[in-house]
Amino acid sequence: MINQDTICAIATAQGGAIGIVRVSGPDAIDITSSIFVPLQETTKLQSKEAYTLTFGRICKDEEVIDEVLVSLFRAPHSYTGENSIEIACHGSSYILQQVMQLLIQKGCRSALPGEFTQRAFLNGKMDLSQAEAVADLIASSSAATHRLAMSQMRGGFSKELTDLRTQLLSFVSMVELELDFSEEDVEFANRDSLLKLTENIEQIITRLAESFNVGNAIKNGIPVAIIGETNAGKSTLLNVLLNEEKAIVSDIHGTTRDVIEDTISIKGTLFRFIDTAGIRETHDTIESMGIERTFHKLDQAEIVLLMIAATDSQEQIQQLSTRIRPKCKGKQLIMVFNKSDLITTDKKNELELLAAKNKTTHIFISAKNREKTVELEDMLVRTANLPDVSQNDVIVTNVRHYEALTHALESIHRVKEGLHNNISGDFLSQDIRECMHYLGEITGTISNDEILGNIFSHFCIGK
Amino acid sequence: MINQDTICAIATAQGGAIGIVRVSGPDAIDITSSIFVPLQETTKLQSKEAYTLTFGRICKDEEVIDEVLVSLFRAPHSYTGENSIEIACHGSSYILQQVMQLLIQKGCRSALPGEFTQRAFLNGKMDLSQAEAVADLIASSSAATHRLAMSQMRGGFSKELTDLRTQLLSFVSMVELELDFSEEDVEFANRDSLLKLTENIEQIITRLAESFNVGNAIKNGIPVAIIGETNAGKSTLLNVLLNEEKAIVSDIHGTTRDVIEDTISIKGTLFRFIDTAGIRETHDTIESMGIERTFHKLDQAEIVLLMIAATDSQEQIQQLSTRIRPKCKGKQLIMVFNKSDLITTDKKNELELLAAKNKTTHIFISAKNREKTVELEDMLVRTANLPDVSQNDVIVTNVRHYEALTHALESIHRVKEGLHNNISGDFLSQDIRECMHYLGEITGTISNDEILGNIFSHFCIGK
Repeated sequence: MINQDTICAIATAQGGAIGIVRVSGPDAIDITSSIFVPLQETTKLQSKEAYTLTFGRICKDEEVIDEVLVSLFRAPHSYTGENSIEIACHGSSYILQQVMQLLIQKGCRSALPGEFTQRAFLNGKMDLSQAEAVADLIASSSAATHRLAMSQMRGGFSKELTDLRTQLLSFVSMVELELDFSEEDVEFANRDSLLKLTENIEQIITRLAESFNVGNAIKNGIPVAIIGETNAGKSTLLNVLLNEEKAIVSDIHGTTRDVIEDTISIKGTLFRFIDTAGIRETHDTIESMGIERTFHKLDQAEIVLLMIAATDSQEQIQQLSTRIRPKCKGKQLIMVFNKSDLITTDKKNELELLAAKNKTTHIFISAKNREKTVELEDMLVRTANLPDVSQNDVIVTNVRHYEALTHALESIHRVKEGLHNNISGDFLSQDIRECMHYLGEITGTISNDEILGNIFSHFCIGK
Repeated sequence: MINQDTICAIATAQGGAIGIVRVSGPDAIDITSSIFVPLQETTKLQSKEAYTLTFGRICKDEEVIDEVLVSLFRAPHSYTGENSIEIACHGSSYILQQVMQLLIQKGCRSALPGEFTQRAFLNGKMDLSQAEAVADLIASSSAATHRLAMSQMRGGFSKELTDLRTQLLSFVSMVELELDFSEEDVEFANRDSLLKLTENIEQIITRLAESFNVGNAIKNGIPVAIIGETNAGKSTLLNVLLNEEKAIVSDIHGTTRDVIEDTISIKGTLFRFIDTAGIRETHDTIESMGIERTFHKLDQAEIVLLMIAATDSQEQIQQLSTRIRPKCKGKQLIMVFNKSDLITTDKKNELELLAAKNKTTHIFISAKNREKTVELEDMLVRTANLPDVSQNDVIVTNVRHYEALTHALESIHRVKEGLHNNISGDFLSQDIRECMHYLGEITGTISNDEILGNIFSHFCIGK
């Protein structure tokens, strides 16, 4: 047991029918017992078995604070690995605060954010990436984010990394053994099989690091920029997609000056929409700034919806397309011909020819009348083309993990290079150790107060 | 068991570390068992003892929805009196929704607001006034409201009413027995002792009904109107008292046109503040309407703070006082001389004389500089003069109870009158039965779907 003090926290949000106060630490049971009077039985809390519920009253002197249910857990068979109590009260914030005050009076300390999970980690109940998954799980809001968090919490990720570290460890031990016998010029570690192992590890880390693209898109949404001339109907489309009046829509040119972002889940795929100021030539300073931001935001987009008023002249449209196209290199571009209810069939054919000439996906819609907007949504999902994930897939979603993997990859590259160049064992050993360090940072085998503080401070209180 | 179906609901607010799904009904344990896989043991949920916790996984086909703790209760030893389950999950709304969906697929029904407590009532676990106290307990936000709700939930109120009903029942039985033997002109019920009992009951009901004044003040706050000429500093004072910028304060006369209400607890006493438009003569139509509202609002106040700019002329102040005083009959009036940092000692003495002449409590403050505002708060608490309540006090806080008591009181008055006038047993019996009916409505001995629907629809889901 690493922690000597007993912590408590309210673990439920304000406003429900039931509220829960969590207590964990060596004195959790004794402290709770000192403010709790069991009803309908004479057994004291201390003599109750683990995994039992006891009905009774929380009392402050002569006054009853609440009638509660107390859940009892004994070390090491609890979430934190310590003696633990959960007090289920009526969900009044007054009652919950009173219970907290009583516990603190009797010797508890108010828990820091994520401190229960931190203790679970420190007591070896889970590794660091699993602990981080707990926060992701609580924040999960879609089937896909839930699956990723659940997979990580169940340790799919950790096992793979631990295997890699074990292989690297036996590898580096051999190399370091050679150093001990350096004068005898022996070679315990066969360089060919080492190279093979390195390449294998490189491949696995690369795959993990690359999965971050998918993981990040699932977790934070695929960035979609909506761009086009003023009054082409960008804000109207965004409203239709978001199903709410977020952007101000008016008939005055250049209304939308601020970049508005919002995420929406379309058929299970999360998109992060970026609405932008119109890109017409302007002398208005504020609006010019908006347009500059537009092009800047374009860099972050993966999909660009180029909104075009189908009623504009062919020449105007061609000009716009020529102006935007170079800024969309490496992105998925979709030409969206809006106001298509107002054009002739001939005009439509012309525009289709134009899109075909530019080899660009296109669609005719009327945002105002909500015509073909569902088809546009389908097109977005197809363009995003995110793979279906299952709970068995190992996908990196955490920036911290991604950075550690990137560093690990650099080290393993140096190892591989070193092997090719036949560098001496001590340099080799140093790079291998560095790779191991970064992999260990992910699972928490290597950790320090700063890393832990950073991770757990983002947790909610009571977790 | 009155209910044949099994209900489920999320019992915690969105956004906490832990979320709880509640299940209650004959199939609660079987249904939960069908979606739950215990870990680290082979015992099925069905064979577990009551008041135990089981750790395991909620699964949907092959997919793990969450790792959870399941609390098990067996009828009649549960909150509802039925078989019950509480599933403690990670507090993600996605996970909670998934668990709910699974339970509904397996045969649960989504619970109505307050349905768990309604079942507790129908299964005889508590009477109606205790059930209502559960909602009050959850909503309680101060020591006093908490004490009242706790006292009511523990049945202090119910016992007294049940005793009264029992006495009335034996009373009415005697009278009705006489009716059976009416031709023989016997008198089983001694009229003198009946009168004594009636007077005793009248006294008790009167005391209970009168306690509603205190109960209501504690629960909803004591109404305080702040009134005075425009620019006397009413809004500034309100802001100081409320500790926030609720009312718009400006230096333009007549800024506050809307009546703003807010409640605040000062040293444990709840006040409901009513800010009002200034009462100077005006030709502005909107402002005139505001002033009319002011006088209207004055009717509802128990305490009136008459705000006076101490810098105004003695004559002006005298005029104002004369104008307001008649509208404050039966209310506690406090003259608040604001801007007292700007007047001379002579002026202050004059004003003190004025207040003394009118026999009115007064205080000199500077709202802007927060001078003596704490003293004003103390004065308010003293003026409110609410009794200290303990958990043993029986105090009516519920309008429904108050109305029933008022009706019961009318009936018992008629009984008393009838006894004095020697009316016949059948009329007597009818009035006694009516009184019993109203008392029974409070505890729920008498109830119908409409009353129950009304009461429980105001509960939160999951309670």
